[in-house]
Amino acid sequence: MGPHPAVAAIRLAVRRVLHHVLDEVALSPDGLSGSPGRAPLVLAACSGGADSMALATALAFEARKFNIRAGAVTVDHGLQAGSTARALEVAARLRELGLSPVDAVGVTVDGRGGPEAAARDARYAALDAAAQTHGATAVLLGHTRDDQAETVLLGLARGSGTRSLSGMAAVNGRYRRPFLLLDRDTVRTACLAQGIDVWEDPHNADSAYTRSRVRHEALPVLEKSLGKGIVEALARTAQLSRDDADALDQWAATAERDVVDGEGGLDTHRLYALPAAVRRRVLRRAAIGAGAPAGSLFARHIEEADRLVTDWRGQKPLNLPGGVTAGRRGGRLFFQAL
Amino acid sequence: MGPHPAVAAIRLAVRRVLHHVLDEVALSPDGLSGSPGRAPLVLAACSGGADSMALATALAFEARKFNIRAGAVTVDHGLQAGSTARALEVAARLRELGLSPVDAVGVTVDGRGGPEAAARDARYAALDAAAQTHGATAVLLGHTRDDQAETVLLGLARGSGTRSLSGMAAVNGRYRRPFLLLDRDTVRTACLAQGIDVWEDPHNADSAYTRSRVRHEALPVLEKSLGKGIVEALARTAQLSRDDADALDQWAATAERDVVDGEGGLDTHRLYALPAAVRRRVLRRAAIGAGAPAGSLFARHIEEADRLVTDWRGQKPLNLPGGVTAGRRGGRLFFQAL
Repeated sequence: MGPHPAVAAIRLAVRRVLHHVLDEVALSPDGLSGSPGRAPLVLAACSGGADSMALATALAFEARKFNIRAGAVTVDHGLQAGSTARALEVAARLRELGLSPVDAVGVTVDGRGGPEAAARDARYAALDAAAQTHGATAVLLGHTRDDQAETVLLGLARGSGTRSLSGMAAVNGRYRRPFLLLDRDTVRTACLAQGIDVWEDPHNADSAYTRSRVRHEALPVLEKSLGKGIVEALARTAQLSRDDADALDQWAATAERDVVDGEGGLDTHRLYALPAAVRRRVLRRAAIGAGAPAGSLFARHIEEADRLVTDWRGQKPLNLPGGVTAGRRGGRLFFQAL
Repeated sequence: MGPHPAVAAIRLAVRRVLHHVLDEVALSPDGLSGSPGRAPLVLAACSGGADSMALATALAFEARKFNIRAGAVTVDHGLQAGSTARALEVAARLRELGLSPVDAVGVTVDGRGGPEAAARDARYAALDAAAQTHGATAVLLGHTRDDQAETVLLGLARGSGTRSLSGMAAVNGRYRRPFLLLDRDTVRTACLAQGIDVWEDPHNADSAYTRSRVRHEALPVLEKSLGKGIVEALARTAQLSRDDADALDQWAATAERDVVDGEGGLDTHRLYALPAAVRRRVLRRAAIGAGAPAGSLFARHIEEADRLVTDWRGQKPLNLPGGVTAGRRGGRLFFQAL
């Protein structure tokens, strides 16, 4: 008798990613691994929750079939009483699965950018450091299709366009998300079927957190209003939006080279001839190139710069974030740091 | 004392569109109007509800300042008892506003494609016919930013990408939507402030209709979970998505010319070099060009055709909707009707 279908599904998802990792190691001139001569190391990032415990079991199972070493990292955010003991307990369970090395890493969350963003930043810094220390080729993350749908809704609420709808990447540097096309139910069923104890982060049900409200309030009502397929539709939107945003970024990079002259001015006639979506991306690139911080550059800044091209009435130079100005002189646009 | 701010807002919105209409008439070689020599006619489409009654009042008021004739059309869908009497009553009120001509047009809704789509198709057919009969230059529609947000959510539920997130166009042929950037509260306040009687379509509150569920269930919960700015964020998403989809369609049209050879085959090497978002649009165009009906062509069809380019293992030709096949022979892709 084979494994439970949910267990088979999570193993297949991890197997595909491991194949991909080995392909990349083979293609890489000096190997992607920081430990030449040894089998590549793949780490699972694991909170102890159902999704990442399922990930750890599948990684431990599948790595044996490959020339791959499998380890794990659990991060103690220090935000709840007993979190350190909890992290050590999770690490012990990960070692029982046969994973090695297993790190339990404490981090300090400083609260900058909101509690969720600060915790995420601290977590990824710790994962990066662990991957560096152990020379890991890849770090697997347990995000499911449901997490992806939530991320798309959060991006939608920003209203900043196609890139913000593209959710989480399946591959981003050393990070891989094997479960991004699997639904949360399947992953949780796989845990139950393997008799794995899991720990639910109380933050996941805490309505002070936007993502928790999206999960427990917004998505259930959207399903009721729009039909059961909404999670799948949101996940598909992420993929299509990512491809669209990548293509438009590529066009904007080419277009920027075409409109720029020797002195760093942008030819307004050539800008005018571009589709609005491409022109605005070129202006954004130019502003960032001149030193404007990407995170402070909003649609209204780019729209105002765009009016120097499309609605020129002799406007004064604009002040953009980071002390960058955008002005038009003699049919050319200049983005300059003060 | 000037008008109430909400009344000023709806008049300004209509005034901008009338300027635009007159600019186009001036630029058009034979005039966009079907009645050369006479002042151009602009019609308001009016259900008798608050949004479209506000539209009719603003059109009646503003047209007087321009060399423009203002009329209206109300459509009787025949779906409710007393709907014909209601339409005649709305028409009488529109005439009282000084609009002329005013048509009350009865239509038959056949239910094809679902009740909402069938009613919409019948309504636009009637509006087109009225515009044709009276030689109208433009037909104004009363959709607000809130309607736009609902349309984006409905598109999101289809999960078919950037074009489906682009909502309703501000300008589409003879149709214009002056209120697309105004919120519903402003438009309704303008009605109240002018003492206009309005009639609420009971369908708007009927939870059998998907749009009604989006309005009364989904959007309020999204506001609660994601914050008050969600309607604005959705409307901004519509505009950005429309621009992105237009740019990508333009790229795909150029790319299609570059990859096609004299015999109608598409060069697979050149296709492969395109970004995925552009390549899939080229494949979609080629399938439609060969006779596949756009509405029956789903993402999975295009993905399968894409694998003939990106994952070629000697696959058999595919069957696409409308009796179109897609097959690869000698480094070229052929889309052909059976």
